[in-house]
Amino acid sequence: MTQATNNQPSTISTNNGIEILCIGSELLLGKILNTNVTWLADQLALIGLNHYFQSVVGDNSERLKSCLIDSSKRSRILITTGGLGPTPDDLTIETIASTFKTKLIENQEIINDIKSKFRFSVEIPKNNFKQALLPENSKLIPNFTGTAPGIIYSPSKDFTIITLPGVPSEMKHMWKQTVRDWLSDHFSREEVIYSKTLKFTGISESSLAEKIPKLLQNKNPTVAPYASLGEVKLRITANAKTAKKASSLIQPIETKLKNTFELNYYGSENETLASIVIDLLRKRKEKLSVAESCTGGSLSAALTEIPCASDAFVGGVVAYNNYIKQNILGVPNNLLEKHGAVSEQVAKAMAIGIKNTFRTDWSIAISGIAGPSGGSSLKPVGLVEIVIFGQTSYQSIQEHFGSHRERNQIQKLSVVRALDQLRLFLLEKS
Amino acid sequence: MTQATNNQPSTISTNNGIEILCIGSELLLGKILNTNVTWLADQLALIGLNHYFQSVVGDNSERLKSCLIDSSKRSRILITTGGLGPTPDDLTIETIASTFKTKLIENQEIINDIKSKFRFSVEIPKNNFKQALLPENSKLIPNFTGTAPGIIYSPSKDFTIITLPGVPSEMKHMWKQTVRDWLSDHFSREEVIYSKTLKFTGISESSLAEKIPKLLQNKNPTVAPYASLGEVKLRITANAKTAKKASSLIQPIETKLKNTFELNYYGSENETLASIVIDLLRKRKEKLSVAESCTGGSLSAALTEIPCASDAFVGGVVAYNNYIKQNILGVPNNLLEKHGAVSEQVAKAMAIGIKNTFRTDWSIAISGIAGPSGGSSLKPVGLVEIVIFGQTSYQSIQEHFGSHRERNQIQKLSVVRALDQLRLFLLEKS
Repeated sequence: MTQATNNQPSTISTNNGIEILCIGSELLLGKILNTNVTWLADQLALIGLNHYFQSVVGDNSERLKSCLIDSSKRSRILITTGGLGPTPDDLTIETIASTFKTKLIENQEIINDIKSKFRFSVEIPKNNFKQALLPENSKLIPNFTGTAPGIIYSPSKDFTIITLPGVPSEMKHMWKQTVRDWLSDHFSREEVIYSKTLKFTGISESSLAEKIPKLLQNKNPTVAPYASLGEVKLRITANAKTAKKASSLIQPIETKLKNTFELNYYGSENETLASIVIDLLRKRKEKLSVAESCTGGSLSAALTEIPCASDAFVGGVVAYNNYIKQNILGVPNNLLEKHGAVSEQVAKAMAIGIKNTFRTDWSIAISGIAGPSGGSSLKPVGLVEIVIFGQTSYQSIQEHFGSHRERNQIQKLSVVRALDQLRLFLLEKS
Repeated sequence: MTQATNNQPSTISTNNGIEILCIGSELLLGKILNTNVTWLADQLALIGLNHYFQSVVGDNSERLKSCLIDSSKRSRILITTGGLGPTPDDLTIETIASTFKTKLIENQEIINDIKSKFRFSVEIPKNNFKQALLPENSKLIPNFTGTAPGIIYSPSKDFTIITLPGVPSEMKHMWKQTVRDWLSDHFSREEVIYSKTLKFTGISESSLAEKIPKLLQNKNPTVAPYASLGEVKLRITANAKTAKKASSLIQPIETKLKNTFELNYYGSENETLASIVIDLLRKRKEKLSVAESCTGGSLSAALTEIPCASDAFVGGVVAYNNYIKQNILGVPNNLLEKHGAVSEQVAKAMAIGIKNTFRTDWSIAISGIAGPSGGSSLKPVGLVEIVIFGQTSYQSIQEHFGSHRERNQIQKLSVVRALDQLRLFLLEKS
C-alpha cells in the first residue's frame, strides 16, 4: 500500500481556513466525550496550523452533505473523523462522492490489505469491501491498525477533505504516519508553534501556580498548567519564525521551572513515572518486583505498559487475600492478626517477602482500602500503606487519599505515589 | 432577580431544530476537552429533545456572527456556551445584538446583583458592568453562582438563542434552574427518548452488522453499532409518548438481538466482562487466580477494578521472566527450553501452577508477545497463548492479534479474550 502522494492540491499559501468535522450520531447523544477533536486541535497547533471551526454532525447523509457544502465555502481544508467503518451508518465516503459529484472507484490495494488483515479468519464479512471504494482522484491514507482507510480528496483547487476514522487509536496512527507530513508539506506556514510539556508530581496545581504567578502571565512563550489525577503538567508554548528560535525561547523557561520545582519535576513529554523508574533501574542494572493488595495489579500494569519493561521489572504478586499474603509472600500470621492487612508492618513484610522470593534488588508493597466498602473509623477508605525496599534500607509511607475518592482514583493515586517514592529513593541513592 | 418569563416565543411545535454552539478560543487550542457540549447533549436527550448539530468557534466577532446567521437559517433553537464573562474577549452578547440589529439595554437587576455579589470587595472591577447590558426584549437567565447572566432571546418568531456561560458549574446550575423548564414548557414534546446499550464480544462490528441489516435500518427504535477494542456495542434508542412505551418498544429488539447473537452477547449498560465473570464466580462460590506474562498485571487490574472483586478473585502472579515462571509457578525448565515461554505447554503449566499454589477453583494463564520487540517469524508480535483451567478440565486458545497492533492493544485484547473465554467456560459448566 502506498502513502498518499503530493500531486494535488499544490502548495496552499494561506495559514487559515482549516476546520474539523466529527461525524457520528453517538457524539450527539451526550454519553461520549469528543476526545478526537481535542487531540486533532492539539496536533494542528503543534505543527503551527490554526483552525477556526469545529463541528459535529450525526450519521445522516443530508445533514452531512449540508456541512460539506458549508465547509467548502468557508475553508481550505476540512478534516473529518468518523463514518469510515463497514456498517450502513458509515456514510462519509459515499456522501463526499455524491456531494461533489464524483465516481467511487474500487481500490485494489485496499482489497488486498483487507484480505491480509483477515487472513486468520474463515471468511471476510462482505461489508468490509465497501471500504475499498474511494472517490476518483483521491489519495489513500493507509490504516495500518484497522481496515478503514482515509482519503485526501480535493473536489476543487481550493478545497481539500481529509477523512480519518473515528476510532481514536487508528485516527492517531494515520495522522502521524500520513496526514501530519502532508499538511506540513502543503502549507507554507509563516510561524511555527512549538511546545514542551514538563511533568510534576507531589505538588498540587494551585501550589505550583502560586510559585510562578509571573510565568503564568507570560505572553511568548506561554506557560499553562493542566492537572490530572496525581500529577500536574506545565505546557510551555512558543511562537517563532523557526523551530530553532521557538526552542531557544522555551529553553530558559524550562530551566527556570526545573530549578523552581526541583524533585517535583519528574519528566517531560511522553515520559511517565513508570518509564522514568524503569530507566533509572536499567542504568543501575537493578531489578524490581512488586506485591500489590489494593492496587490489584495496576502497579504491575503501569510498569509493563512500558516497552522493554522486563529490563528492570521481573514481576509481582497480587495478594488479594490473607492466604496469599501468608503463603506466597511469607507475611507472618501474627502481624496480620495484630495489625491487620492494611498496616505498615504487613506492607513491610510483603515487600520483604516479594524481594526475597523474586530475588530482586528493589521491591514495592502496597496495602490499602480502595473502597467503596471495607473502611472503618480507624482505617477509612483511602488509607494506603506503601513500603519500598532497597538493598540496605527501606522507606514507608502512609497516605490518606480521602474517603470521598472513588475506588479507581485511590488505586491510581497509590500507583503514582509508589512509583514516585521509588523514583525519589533511586535518585537519593545515585 | 426574576426568572425568565414565558411570553416569547410562543410554544414551538417542532421536536427538531436544536443546535449547540460553544464559543471560546481555548476550545480550538486542543488543551481542553469540551465537556459542556457532552453534558448539554445528554440533558437534551433526557428531556426528549434531539439536537442535530454542534459547533465550536473562537472568540472572534466576525466568525461568531457568521455562525449565528447560519444557525438562524437551519435551526429553531440555538444554545450557546461561553463568551459571557467580563473580559474584552467575551463577545457573545454584543455580537448577538449587532448580528440581529437590536439595542443593548442596561438591566438594573443585574447591576444590583453584581453589587450584592461584590459587597465584600473594596471596589467592583468596572468590566463587570458590561454584563448588565442585554439585548432589548431578551429574558434574563439568572446566574446564582457567578456574575455572568444568560439570556433567552428571539430575534424572530422562528429562532431563539439561549446563552449560557462557559464555566461548567455555572452553566449546569443555569440549565437546571431555568433553561430545562423553559425548553420543556415551550416545546410541545410528544415524545421521550430512551436508550439501552447491549454489549457483544468475539464478533467484529462488520460481522455483527451483516446479521442484522434490517434492524440497523429500523426507524423506531433505532439500532446503532459502536466498536471499541475487542468489543462492539449496540445502542437501541426509542422515541415514544411515555418512558413505559419506549421501554416496550426496546424490549422485543433487545430479545431479538440476544437471541441472534447468543453467547456473543455478554451484558448491558455498565456491565463489563470482568464484572460478569466475577458475578458468575460469586454465584458459584468459586475462586479465581491468574498468571500473567505479556499482559503484565492488566488482567488482575481489570478484575480488581470491580468493587468486591475479592469475593471471587484471590490474586495472581505477574511472571515477567523465566525464573518466576519456574520457581513461583513451577513451570518445568524442559518445557521452557523445548517450547519457549510463549507456547500452549508453558501457558498450561502456568495455569496449573497458579491454581495449585493459590488454591483456587479456576485459573487463567496468559503468555504472549506484546511487542514492539521480541517477535520472530515463527512467533510474531501479537501471538498470545491463553489457558483456562477449571476443576476437571481446561481450555486453551491461541490468538494472532496481528503484528500491526500496538503493545497496549495486544495487552488489552488478550485481557478481553481471556475474560470472555472464562465467561463461556463458566456458562458451559452451569
